[in-house]
Amino acid sequence: MASLKVPATVPSPSEDAEQLRKAFEGWGTNEGLIISILGHRSAAQRRAIRQAYRQSYNEELLKALDGEISGDFERAVLLWTLDPAERDAWLANEAVRKWRPENRVLIEIACARSSGELFAVRQAYHARFKRSLEEDVAAHTTGDFRKLLVPLVSAYRYEGEEINLTLAKSEARMLHEKISDKAYNHEELIRILTTRSKAQLIKTFNHYNDEFGKPVNKDLKSDPKDDFLAALRATIRCICCPERYFEKVIRLAINGLGTDENALTRVITIRAEVDLKVIAEVYQKRNSMPLERAIKGDTSGDYEAMLLALLGQEA
Amino acid sequence: MASLKVPATVPSPSEDAEQLRKAFEGWGTNEGLIISILGHRSAAQRRAIRQAYRQSYNEELLKALDGEISGDFERAVLLWTLDPAERDAWLANEAVRKWRPENRVLIEIACARSSGELFAVRQAYHARFKRSLEEDVAAHTTGDFRKLLVPLVSAYRYEGEEINLTLAKSEARMLHEKISDKAYNHEELIRILTTRSKAQLIKTFNHYNDEFGKPVNKDLKSDPKDDFLAALRATIRCICCPERYFEKVIRLAINGLGTDENALTRVITIRAEVDLKVIAEVYQKRNSMPLERAIKGDTSGDYEAMLLALLGQEA
Repeated sequence: MASLKVPATVPSPSEDAEQLRKAFEGWGTNEGLIISILGHRSAAQRRAIRQAYRQSYNEELLKALDGEISGDFERAVLLWTLDPAERDAWLANEAVRKWRPENRVLIEIACARSSGELFAVRQAYHARFKRSLEEDVAAHTTGDFRKLLVPLVSAYRYEGEEINLTLAKSEARMLHEKISDKAYNHEELIRILTTRSKAQLIKTFNHYNDEFGKPVNKDLKSDPKDDFLAALRATIRCICCPERYFEKVIRLAINGLGTDENALTRVITIRAEVDLKVIAEVYQKRNSMPLERAIKGDTSGDYEAMLLALLGQEA
Repeated sequence: MASLKVPATVPSPSEDAEQLRKAFEGWGTNEGLIISILGHRSAAQRRAIRQAYRQSYNEELLKALDGEISGDFERAVLLWTLDPAERDAWLANEAVRKWRPENRVLIEIACARSSGELFAVRQAYHARFKRSLEEDVAAHTTGDFRKLLVPLVSAYRYEGEEINLTLAKSEARMLHEKISDKAYNHEELIRILTTRSKAQLIKTFNHYNDEFGKPVNKDLKSDPKDDFLAALRATIRCICCPERYFEKVIRLAINGLGTDENALTRVITIRAEVDLKVIAEVYQKRNSMPLERAIKGDTSGDYEAMLLALLGQEA
């Protein structure tokens, strides 16, 4: 369930655009006005506001915002204002350009979206970057990560409910065999994770747990830490339980040494219209503290206000 | 340019459906009537006829055809009657189920279609086979072929005209290095062929020719024959010059020991609404004989008549 709250009646896109223009005018910027508008509009409404702004002022709203606000607040507002597919394309490009093995953004985009949404990201990537997503991923990553990430971002998984039980059993055994041999980069293991439907994979993982007495992700833990194993675990968690995966990203972002604002902003903006309400419930159960209070404790100012708006605070 | 000839005025879809029903009735089948209708209708018109047939007779037209006709004629009519994306999905599934290293169908579908057309094939594959295309390709192929075919069928190549000249030069050198080392299955070689845009690849191949004095495909020739090298050459030809590639498929289908009807039917049905007129011109230049005459010499009966209709013979 989405956390975003949109008022029952909203002004027209051109009225919203006009108010935003006012927020930019004069001495200083009216950040509260920006939040009260953009923080309470759906993707379709934000798109209409951008269009109205362009028509009225012959300028891109995102560009105007870029000139007015800064820091974590700016990043939150810009990411949020983008269309979901554009936002993912932008985040994927950033992840590719600055690629590091511990980066999970490409895995999230490939696995915690529907097949149609991932394809929309690939279309948005063409439009914005004049290259394909898989082309950039393949050119900027190497080794085992490339073997995993290129098919992940290129997948168009089947989304029906049909499950092949025999296949689930044989592939659970195959996964167990490769994992027992520590052949984590084996092409059959990667084939299974990158091509099977989510429903089929969940069946396979359940069978793994039943037959071998441990969840597959437990068998993929390692000591010392290994980024590729962590990437495999993230893949599996984004497929099986995106809410719990994202709860953990938020938890680590808040509990770490200093706040990881980029991770916090990413999850809040990406999931506010999807399932942030569920993620917040999981967070509260796991941490005995409302997510809202945790965010208040770790952030401040306009950035805090923007995150709280997306979390569902009334305008 | 398409070869298909559609009359200036065509009957309504339900009139066409009624005529087809008549062709199936009574003693024997009126094959000529089937050809005169289906062999002269566009994809959109055939789709409307199938719909009208279903509404009028509560039966699938393809199923009715299946009961009435047989052999090469049946295969030609059924493949032709399908929508392009459905046809490709059907051919891809057949190629996957009976996969052999010399099979080129998956390469053709991946490389001699636009990015949007390939994606439509993947959607049609979901709808018809309840699995994803890349999932089946990955599960049924092995070794180097899997390394090539899975990214090929999963690609969504950028289609703009932008070219990076520096990249074309460096990747031409990289291709030359791998080919000189006989590292034909090297992941960089496969990355380049499977992810770069067609415009970029054509520039890269041109640069290869300029710098190393030979077309890349000449350097990929081998003696004795090697199916994987042939697959790489087919990939390159489908990207650079699909008309010449398909002319060669037709030529080999006709000139071989006995006619390869499946290959002939495939190319004629797939390209009749795309560029079969150009392919026929290339054929005539290369073989000093009109394609029409070559087909007349190698086929007979209703099958011959159907192919000639798709080649542009008037109804």
